[in-house]
Amino acid sequence: MKKLWGGRFTKSAEEWVDEFGASIEFDQELVNEDLEGSIAHVTMLSANGIISEEDAEKIKDGLMQLQEKAAKDELSYSVKLEDIHLNLESALTDIVGPVGGKLHTARSRNDQVATDMHLYLKKQVAVIAQLIKEMQEALVEQAEANVETVMPGYTHLQRAQPISFAHHLMAYFWMLERDKERFEESMKRINLSPLGAGALAGTTFPIDRYQTAGFLGFDGIYENSLDAVSDRDFILEFLSSSSILMMHLSRLSEEFILWSSQEFQFIELDDSFATGSSIMPQKKNPDMAELIRGKTGRVYGNLMGLLTVLKGLPLAYNKDMQEDKEGMFDTVKTVIGSLKIFAGMIKSMKVKKQQMEKATKNDFSNATELADYLSGKGVPFREAHEIVGKLVLTCVQKGCFLGDLPLEEYKDVNPLFEDDIYTVLDPYTAVERRNSAGGTGFAQVKLAIEKAKTLLKEEEHAV
Amino acid sequence: MKKLWGGRFTKSAEEWVDEFGASIEFDQELVNEDLEGSIAHVTMLSANGIISEEDAEKIKDGLMQLQEKAAKDELSYSVKLEDIHLNLESALTDIVGPVGGKLHTARSRNDQVATDMHLYLKKQVAVIAQLIKEMQEALVEQAEANVETVMPGYTHLQRAQPISFAHHLMAYFWMLERDKERFEESMKRINLSPLGAGALAGTTFPIDRYQTAGFLGFDGIYENSLDAVSDRDFILEFLSSSSILMMHLSRLSEEFILWSSQEFQFIELDDSFATGSSIMPQKKNPDMAELIRGKTGRVYGNLMGLLTVLKGLPLAYNKDMQEDKEGMFDTVKTVIGSLKIFAGMIKSMKVKKQQMEKATKNDFSNATELADYLSGKGVPFREAHEIVGKLVLTCVQKGCFLGDLPLEEYKDVNPLFEDDIYTVLDPYTAVERRNSAGGTGFAQVKLAIEKAKTLLKEEEHAV
Amino acid sequence: MKKLWGGRFTKSAEEWVDEFGASIEFDQELVNEDLEGSIAHVTMLSANGIISEEDAEKIKDGLMQLQEKAAKDELSYSVKLEDIHLNLESALTDIVGPVGGKLHTARSRNDQVATDMHLYLKKQVAVIAQLIKEMQEALVEQAEANVETVMPGYTHLQRAQPISFAHHLMAYFWMLERDKERFEESMKRINLSPLGAGALAGTTFPIDRYQTAGFLGFDGIYENSLDAVSDRDFILEFLSSSSILMMHLSRLSEEFILWSSQEFQFIELDDSFATGSSIMPQKKNPDMAELIRGKTGRVYGNLMGLLTVLKGLPLAYNKDMQEDKEGMFDTVKTVIGSLKIFAGMIKSMKVKKQQMEKATKNDFSNATELADYLSGKGVPFREAHEIVGKLVLTCVQKGCFLGDLPLEEYKDVNPLFEDDIYTVLDPYTAVERRNSAGGTGFAQVKLAIEKAKTLLKEEEHAV
Amino acid sequence: MKKLWGGRFTKSAEEWVDEFGASIEFDQELVNEDLEGSIAHVTMLSANGIISEEDAEKIKDGLMQLQEKAAKDELSYSVKLEDIHLNLESALTDIVGPVGGKLHTARSRNDQVATDMHLYLKKQVAVIAQLIKEMQEALVEQAEANVETVMPGYTHLQRAQPISFAHHLMAYFWMLERDKERFEESMKRINLSPLGAGALAGTTFPIDRYQTAGFLGFDGIYENSLDAVSDRDFILEFLSSSSILMMHLSRLSEEFILWSSQEFQFIELDDSFATGSSIMPQKKNPDMAELIRGKTGRVYGNLMGLLTVLKGLPLAYNKDMQEDKEGMFDTVKTVIGSLKIFAGMIKSMKVKKQQMEKATKNDFSNATELADYLSGKGVPFREAHEIVGKLVLTCVQKGCFLGDLPLEEYKDVNPLFEDDIYTVLDPYTAVERRNSAGGTGFAQVKLAIEKAKTLLKEEEHAV
Repeated sequence: MKKLWGGRFTKSAEEWVDEFGASIEFDQELVNEDLEGSIAHVTMLSANGIISEEDAEKIKDGLMQLQEKAAKDELSYSVKLEDIHLNLESALTDIVGPVGGKLHTARSRNDQVATDMHLYLKKQVAVIAQLIKEMQEALVEQAEANVETVMPGYTHLQRAQPISFAHHLMAYFWMLERDKERFEESMKRINLSPLGAGALAGTTFPIDRYQTAGFLGFDGIYENSLDAVSDRDFILEFLSSSSILMMHLSRLSEEFILWSSQEFQFIELDDSFATGSSIMPQKKNPDMAELIRGKTGRVYGNLMGLLTVLKGLPLAYNKDMQEDKEGMFDTVKTVIGSLKIFAGMIKSMKVKKQQMEKATKNDFSNATELADYLSGKGVPFREAHEIVGKLVLTCVQKGCFLGDLPLEEYKDVNPLFEDDIYTVLDPYTAVERRNSAGGTGFAQVKLAIEKAKTLLKEEEHAV
Repeated sequence: MKKLWGGRFTKSAEEWVDEFGASIEFDQELVNEDLEGSIAHVTMLSANGIISEEDAEKIKDGLMQLQEKAAKDELSYSVKLEDIHLNLESALTDIVGPVGGKLHTARSRNDQVATDMHLYLKKQVAVIAQLIKEMQEALVEQAEANVETVMPGYTHLQRAQPISFAHHLMAYFWMLERDKERFEESMKRINLSPLGAGALAGTTFPIDRYQTAGFLGFDGIYENSLDAVSDRDFILEFLSSSSILMMHLSRLSEEFILWSSQEFQFIELDDSFATGSSIMPQKKNPDMAELIRGKTGRVYGNLMGLLTVLKGLPLAYNKDMQEDKEGMFDTVKTVIGSLKIFAGMIKSMKVKKQQMEKATKNDFSNATELADYLSGKGVPFREAHEIVGKLVLTCVQKGCFLGDLPLEEYKDVNPLFEDDIYTVLDPYTAVERRNSAGGTGFAQVKLAIEKAKTLLKEEEHAV
Repeated sequence: MKKLWGGRFTKSAEEWVDEFGASIEFDQELVNEDLEGSIAHVTMLSANGIISEEDAEKIKDGLMQLQEKAAKDELSYSVKLEDIHLNLESALTDIVGPVGGKLHTARSRNDQVATDMHLYLKKQVAVIAQLIKEMQEALVEQAEANVETVMPGYTHLQRAQPISFAHHLMAYFWMLERDKERFEESMKRINLSPLGAGALAGTTFPIDRYQTAGFLGFDGIYENSLDAVSDRDFILEFLSSSSILMMHLSRLSEEFILWSSQEFQFIELDDSFATGSSIMPQKKNPDMAELIRGKTGRVYGNLMGLLTVLKGLPLAYNKDMQEDKEGMFDTVKTVIGSLKIFAGMIKSMKVKKQQMEKATKNDFSNATELADYLSGKGVPFREAHEIVGKLVLTCVQKGCFLGDLPLEEYKDVNPLFEDDIYTVLDPYTAVERRNSAGGTGFAQVKLAIEKAKTLLKEEEHAV
Repeated sequence: MKKLWGGRFTKSAEEWVDEFGASIEFDQELVNEDLEGSIAHVTMLSANGIISEEDAEKIKDGLMQLQEKAAKDELSYSVKLEDIHLNLESALTDIVGPVGGKLHTARSRNDQVATDMHLYLKKQVAVIAQLIKEMQEALVEQAEANVETVMPGYTHLQRAQPISFAHHLMAYFWMLERDKERFEESMKRINLSPLGAGALAGTTFPIDRYQTAGFLGFDGIYENSLDAVSDRDFILEFLSSSSILMMHLSRLSEEFILWSSQEFQFIELDDSFATGSSIMPQKKNPDMAELIRGKTGRVYGNLMGLLTVLKGLPLAYNKDMQEDKEGMFDTVKTVIGSLKIFAGMIKSMKVKKQQMEKATKNDFSNATELADYLSGKGVPFREAHEIVGKLVLTCVQKGCFLGDLPLEEYKDVNPLFEDDIYTVLDPYTAVERRNSAGGTGFAQVKLAIEKAKTLLKEEEHAV
């Protein structure tokens, strides 16, 4: 079958060059969007008298037959026809005859492909926002069950201060909330129609771009035709929001991996999300968490890839831009999979409360309490801090913990110490008392969980 | 001077290790934000009875003295004191004595540095939004003067269809509009207060985080203390928005470089923005455009750098995060400089209208007109396209252009051609007729310029 | 079919989790390497008395049957069996029965997959080195035909000094020479055998790692078993060398795109490597050059992706490392395709000598000649440079070129000018005289081409 | 002071544009290289009769005065003079008068700056190779002291098989060995002279490029003048080798951080390389390891930045390339600092042998021994593996370890078990027996250490 733009050429390209240049292998992912866009376009063409109603009906009928075939996975594609657009156009002409050629009136592949991408991404971003919400729900569910589960809080991977496990989980709730915000805000720029921009300059036909935008559920149209066909910001934004999301997931992955180790033993992942070793039968590996941590690299790479592609490109469309697709498809698949896995992992994991609590008892993570204690009695914080530092050193040298030192020893160092310090040093009390807004105090954590639940409920109604 | 956290240590670090770990060399950029944050904090501490009013006044007085010194550039910093926070605390204690130590009550360097960064970035993002607007104004100004300046529009760097130069410039207006939107939307997440999150878990002191947030002009507070100290999303978002902005500028840079070449000669940059060669006296190099195109790499690198830093970090603060600063400062400086330069370049450049128009006359960029012409007379677009392809080939072989072929030759190919085709083939007419919404037709371009001016004016009032 | 490591597990993973974790969809690319490695392993096992000769023969026979099936594309794979290793092991057991289980003696998937990757990459790198050579040959061929084709040399995309077109092409010869060097040097680290490292620690069986290394054509073995299974440097090096290569190709792509524009018209690409437009029949787009320029982004992204994956991973194998494959396969495919296309484009392109030469006549790129002329007569270069700068300005104001100014005007400015300056100003002479080592003088260029040809011939013999 | 290329310009650039374009703020780092290069150049000019000996002596004398000033840090630079080259040229002219202008004969800033960069990098790479060696020595030293220190070996951060701590450390020795190889191989391309390439095309003066190359200690010259001035591969290679090195250091950092945690307690870092917390007095943070892990991002970013800069640049020099410097300087500083810190950390850290050994006793990392045991008695490995998997599950359910199960229970499962299994299950024996080449067996580890020491000694003699 001959190339549709071949009129000008005297020599046909060799097959392997065709293959290198063709995008049909991956852009067939856009089959539904492309058909949807074509139906909108042809409807508009006849509504505005650019082609006859009769022609339009024939074409529309053909396009709907193609939709059915696509749904049944009965379409086949040819590399010779380069991309999804020419493949479908050719398939259409096979059904409806030469009239099919009128579909391309007042449209170029440049605005067509941009339209497909916008349609595709707005569907996927909605799915992703929903999956983020489901992962948030899983976090809230585990948090609710673990408000009073006390664990060591870490900075520098050193035990710092005891915290509520729920509080730790809820930190991720807020990260995800920002992720959702970013995806939703980007919708403003995704949900715009480039259709009608033509190759780069608009068209001489009396088209109605607002009409096609309306048919396709877009909120508005691109204001400048050159921009419409050469803009890929909306994909970059998507890749950037996805990179930040994956970064968050990589952090939680790291924590799940640490917590699943024999050294921490804070959680046990459900067997569904872990795998064994081909050589070491005792192993239960947190494979899914590792894999998601690893897949962060792929998404970062996709972002860097497209940023590189677009750097320094003159207007308007350049073939370089064909490289916008695979990274986007791959990111969509990666993000969706990762979110689904995480929601499942969080819900099904076993929290080892006793193990966590035990950890808080055998260390110095209650040292700040002591500094705050002195500070509360008027000792400048810096001085208090130094006093406690020395007490810790004493303990380290003696091989004991702060709670083990007798009161006299405290009083020797500073007479302001009273025997209420032992209560202060208790991890549970320590957590409970950290009741400043957004802090780990149990009351605060409960409040935060309520706030989160309200937020999720409101979103549901908003949808 | 001894380290403020040195109580626990028996051995002092060697100087070069200190230097490697210290951040004072670059985080002194945050001096004003750090003092501002401290004043808010100490005011809140006394308002809530955590320290006495008298102590607070002394500390505040000392901090204001430091502000004055900073304004006069009279502060000096020491690597031994690691970072801006400890340097200022030490300078404060030099002024007010041991009471200065109370400033650190209910605060940690973890929430302090996060607060500084938020304060810093919200100021810079406002500056950047303003500079984007100024560059947009420059574009609109040049566009207004060039509505009817006809130039070749390009795809694949091949002349495609004639367009209005104003239309080309306005494409960048809309890119910048999206950039501004992104920066402004990110403000929602920048303008939140982490202050009061403590080291990671909140505090036992009865602080009022809403009060400090109010003092500092924040819109709200972080809802979770762990998140507050370990979140760097707001910087990533800034780096991502900056990367996309720089990508846009790199595209315009490329075009300015092309247009300044002897081959194009579409514009001449003002001498202020060009430089000469040390060996070739005739050269006038578009240095600033090249440099900005090059600086795109730096900003991409900063984004990739911070994404890498954060990948896989467990909560909460880790020292790795100190690496968030230099890339951010560097990006702020780069973006601000690039926008200023571009506004100046656009305003002062000389547009060579005749050269542009000459270019539209000697090529085939009017071929689409002919295809549309036939299509308008009922020929299926695909067929029309092929007919025109052959006519172009005929011209190429004869060494002439479409307007040079006699009418008979047209009629031989297809009898639907009439002698109005010569008007259709005129570039000026071709541009004028492309009057679909967002197209390059002069009427559309004027409309777009009006829309843009209204938008800019509304923003002004909004500020 | 049940999971091979499932003994320890009480609950089977859901299908979609399996799919997310499985690598068979892409690692089937390694089928030949995996079988090759297994044959070497089993041969060694029996040669060292670890399994019986009889068992070994049965297994080897089964593996060779699988090789035949693979060659005929008759193997089918199952996601349930995760990866290529378990799929093949299962297929083997289907053929030879339980004895197939002995193949896994003294081997783990960790050293097995690493072995596959090393085997794969060493084959591909050899192919790539050969293709680089072919592209170099194409460059030399065009260079030879264009030694005396004079064109403007550019800096800052401004015409700087006239050069030989052959000299310009030969610059890429040397870039590619470095690329080849880098790929070949990396072979030192690719061509090492990890086989026998086991899961991470070696094995208790009396294996002979040197023997398997020999069977597989490796130059040596990894000295440390932990390193053997957790090292992916060799892939990073490959991605880095590929990124630099693609950067070179992106530069040549940019030049081909510029040179193919109506503004430059220095070359015409063969129809086989260009495409048309669906809407603009006259267009002949340098699609392949654009696409390769765009694909640079993909390769950079793959490099960044794997660097990210490996950052901060503790020893030894982690599941994150499964992410090493797709980026490598994709890069191999991209690099091989790009090199093949480029060799074809270079050989088949039409060089428009007259157009190039015309360009050198109508500008100031001969200005340096004049400065060198004065400098050769004893005027300090800086002074000479300034004199010429003013002469250029005079010309610009008069609308003429340096060769058009009468001798008197030269003498007015500086009496050292004689009438030989008109020869000096001729572009052909200018190129000819630039005869310093590595310069553009025709004699130098011929010498360089000879050197290049000798180099290519030597390499051939070396292979 | 006026611009040296200002002759052609009628209008002076505003100061802030100058600042944006100037590089003197960072390229002053190249002061010594620039002077060295100039001395070589002027010596060659007079040796080849291009300038008089007298003039050359004056200039050389002036340059040596500048060298002395540089050594004493007495030079001051001006942004008006853009870069280090013009600053030094101006300083030279201040000393020697107009004759200084002759230094620029037959040289351009394009070849000059490239020469400086090559000179700079070859010095730095030599320093880095030496520092890698010192870090290797530290690893060998600790390894020697810990051959029989048994620790758990990990895959997926799950305990997998017991190993020698020395073996673990030595894995990093080999990574570093590859790093050193890469840096040394890249020297082949760093140690080439671009001097004499002129602006892009060579020169008409009878210069001797081999002579200057010889003076400057280069191994050869660039074969093509266009390539010489536009090549930045050598910096990319450096950034890539540095990225891989930093990746290795990030992995060791991660391990040091894990091992320093209360959960692992495998090592204690020396106080010199750890810091405290401003609020939590008990903390001893592995700051240096964290910071180096974080700095990996910066180096990756520098690599990605320069790759982006160079993408799609036409030949020859473009101003974009000025962006090659800061990332290079920053990487040099980062890599040197990180290597020094790591050598110190490794040497001074305290290895907690008992803690490590204790960890190996209380888990299932000896399970593979059991599978190998059965396999050694003829059970197909896959079957053996499954049997052991079930035994582990039994233990998990009973809350015991493999060594705790009575022999009968073993025999019930498989009669091939004898009472020598208890020896096999001992971690020390397990390590000892893993004596395949490159394995963790003590004999192997000792051999590896000897090999490493020989290697280091040979390199020393080679230097």
